[in-house]
Amino acid sequence: MFLAAITTAAAAADWNIMNPQRTRTKSGLLQISLKSYCESWRMNVELNNIRDFSVVPSECTSYIGKYMNGAQYKADSEATIDECTLYLNTLCDVKKDGKDAWIFDIDDTLLSTVPYYKKHDYGGETLNVTGLEEWMSKGKGTAMEYSLNLYNDIKKRGIQIILVSSRREHLRAATIDNLLDVGFYGWKRVSENECKTVQEYKAGVRDELMKINGYRILGILGDQWSSIRGVPTAKRTFKLPNSLYYVA
Amino acid sequence: MFLAAITTAAAAADWNIMNPQRTRTKSGLLQISLKSYCESWRMNVELNNIRDFSVVPSECTSYIGKYMNGAQYKADSEATIDECTLYLNTLCDVKKDGKDAWIFDIDDTLLSTVPYYKKHDYGGETLNVTGLEEWMSKGKGTAMEYSLNLYNDIKKRGIQIILVSSRREHLRAATIDNLLDVGFYGWKRVSENECKTVQEYKAGVRDELMKINGYRILGILGDQWSSIRGVPTAKRTFKLPNSLYYVA
Repeated sequence: MFLAAITTAAAAADWNIMNPQRTRTKSGLLQISLKSYCESWRMNVELNNIRDFSVVPSECTSYIGKYMNGAQYKADSEATIDECTLYLNTLCDVKKDGKDAWIFDIDDTLLSTVPYYKKHDYGGETLNVTGLEEWMSKGKGTAMEYSLNLYNDIKKRGIQIILVSSRREHLRAATIDNLLDVGFYGWKRVSENECKTVQEYKAGVRDELMKINGYRILGILGDQWSSIRGVPTAKRTFKLPNSLYYVA
Repeated sequence: MFLAAITTAAAAADWNIMNPQRTRTKSGLLQISLKSYCESWRMNVELNNIRDFSVVPSECTSYIGKYMNGAQYKADSEATIDECTLYLNTLCDVKKDGKDAWIFDIDDTLLSTVPYYKKHDYGGETLNVTGLEEWMSKGKGTAMEYSLNLYNDIKKRGIQIILVSSRREHLRAATIDNLLDVGFYGWKRVSENECKTVQEYKAGVRDELMKINGYRILGILGDQWSSIRGVPTAKRTFKLPNSLYYVA
């Protein structure tokens, strides 16, 4: 994780060396180029080109903070949810045997951690796991509005909801309280992680759900590529934007 | 492809029904909301949530045109190339046996088709394959500057370059002329498609390169998810932005 931070910093340095015009001190130019730089950083995170970053580049925390608190993040997330709904509308063959399933991530898919990162420089501080888990244990994560609509829609369609999270097992009770508090209920199962890398763990859970429990996984909604990548996968996958942190 | 266009149009319609404030006629609001809508559309294309679209939504062609001709597309692409370079710098074990390889797409990875789409409403017109192939046969695709730098860097590192394109075989001579004309030379092989879906075809080529030719595929740079997804894949994959068209 530390190495990744160095490579990100190196990318920023290379960028400036290779493109001196981007570092002009004339304030107008600098402002434009910084916004443009940070927008490119965010886009390349979402393209899964920038991986394993441990912190948001310090020059971009203000830009990322504005994005994650602003209308564009909401609009981008809503567009993702709209695509889930369009896909669900194409599924004419949802069976009533309780074996059709949809997987959701929890953090920044159902519950927002933006209130936590707001106090921690929008991803600009090296993650303090103890501090984050302490915040999680208070159950103050807010519902992501569009995700809640989708969640309820999926439930109504008779599709089983399975929550697969990289939160650790000791947070289970607080997580469940938080979810119920803000309106998420009626899921079939919550899986939490303890030891593997997140991508391995989540693919393993899907394998078990399919082979042992006989589920057909119609879709996954997550905010990290590690929730979606790996084999076996779902019939369709959807990624919400999230440039606050990276989970491998 | 036609169905996909309908679903995209349906998404736009749903969006407006669900968010009446977005359709207010007050020009300032509408302008902001249209830009925001189109930015979300573009982001969700890059997140691979919006798939199989056959045209760019008509209300977004002007926005997409501005993006694809502007500084942000260049900055986003340059950031992608920077990540490729950073990754290449981590590879200490490139062997001199001619079996380390890198795969590039051609269109909108090495050669820009923006000049073609400029005359065709930036993806807003249903694709006329004959017209596009006629344009390709003239060999007027311009070099993508940052990709050319990466291409030459990879060549210098002693990594074999393999071009895997969804262009059809009858365009081979024109494509090779175009590539040489703008500075791309010294590749090991050009593969072009004839019959399968692009994702199947490209995964098939990788399988052959690895199993039959014994290549180690260190990386792929492409502008479509279909160039990257599917098994077998490369050690790392990189996706350039491109919201002009979708190749399945």
